Amino acid sequence: MAFDTAPARDHPLSDSVLAQLFTEARTRNAWTDRPVSEDLLRKLYDLTKFGPTAVNNTPARFVFVTSPEAKARLIPLMSEGNQTKSMQAPVNVIIGMDLDFHEHLPKLFPHAPGAKDWFADEAARRESAFRNASLQGGYFMIAARALGLDVGPMSGFDPAGVKAEFFAGTSVEPDFIVNLGYGTDENLFPRSPRFTFEEAAVVL
Amino acid sequence: MAFDTAPARDHPLSDSVLAQLFTEARTRNAWTDRPVSEDLLRKLYDLTKFGPTAVNNTPARFVFVTSPEAKARLIPLMSEGNQTKSMQAPVNVIIGMDLDFHEHLPKLFPHAPGAKDWFADEAARRESAFRNASLQGGYFMIAARALGLDVGPMSGFDPAGVKAEFFAGTSVEPDFIVNLGYGTDENLFPRSPRFTFEEAAVVL
Repeated sequence: MAFDTAPARDHPLSDSVLAQLFTEARTRNAWTDRPVSEDLLRKLYDLTKFGPTAVNNTPARFVFVTSPEAKARLIPLMSEGNQTKSMQAPVNVIIGMDLDFHEHLPKLFPHAPGAKDWFADEAARRESAFRNASLQGGYFMIAARALGLDVGPMSGFDPAGVKAEFFAGTSVEPDFIVNLGYGTDENLFPRSPRFTFEEAAVVL
Repeated sequence: MAFDTAPARDHPLSDSVLAQLFTEARTRNAWTDRPVSEDLLRKLYDLTKFGPTAVNNTPARFVFVTSPEAKARLIPLMSEGNQTKSMQAPVNVIIGMDLDFHEHLPKLFPHAPGAKDWFADEAARRESAFRNASLQGGYFMIAARALGLDVGPMSGFDPAGVKAEFFAGTSVEPDFIVNLGYGTDENLFPRSPRFTFEEAAVVL
């Protein structure tokens, strides 16, 4: 039916969808052994890639760590508290950021042929890479939940070690790592408090 | 019905939902004059706040610019190319990041009373604020689409000017700005190319 895939504008989604994506979703700290197929990882990427980034620079790079051999390279570089759950999760995703994303702008942003030159300054380029790769990390986690997966993001790892082990000789640096799979309720934190609207927002 | 609001685990969402959130959603450059109620802004915040952040630090702060007076303070600080559309959009959202988020960790992460001290180093704290506020910016935009709204994110503005005008005397700095409302197809860019899976990802 055409209706099923037409873009739905001004159409608030149901409470059950909002619960799956936001209000009832939880960071998981334990995982079933159910694997995640490469087909599903590709589907996840194909949602993530459409999220908006500055001049479509899409600086995020995704290393899906799934094999025992690859896990043996990654897990020792993680903080002790993150090792057991990361070993258990069927996939550990290293989300990297390409600091030389501007080299790809002639392809990614073809209607502005000079866009590459807007990012000649290295510090400004790093800032844009960090901001936009992190935005893409946000899209990635919500997209995973939209596909029925659970996520567990982590910053506790040795960045220089992960750079050397997985991104040596490239312009990519690690941003953060996400465990991915089908979570269990084991070791679930009690839901932590959130700021009220008044504490975090203002309408002017 | 209890079923409607129960957390839906391992339940891939429909193609029409994925289209609304990702595959058919577009950055909007022109806006209808339909307003966005404060009630809807609060609903949007109440989805965004549940997205995962490191030690639940939720460093993003949201300034919803809606009145002519507030717009008159913001628009001149934006790049020329962003001014007309930002004037037209019913809401401009300044997404800020609180560099002193650690002060709030005794409240936000109560089960680890020492969490505040993990962020004594200012450079590491700035990095965490930037990463996690940007993640929250990603959640915010997908949540807006989930509520039937359109978004138009922008990095083209004077950060020092926005800091001075909206965050003077605070530990908050601007991250990026999002136009929010109900978009039109006017000035819509042609969809730009995205990296293939092989170009941006690898399975190990």
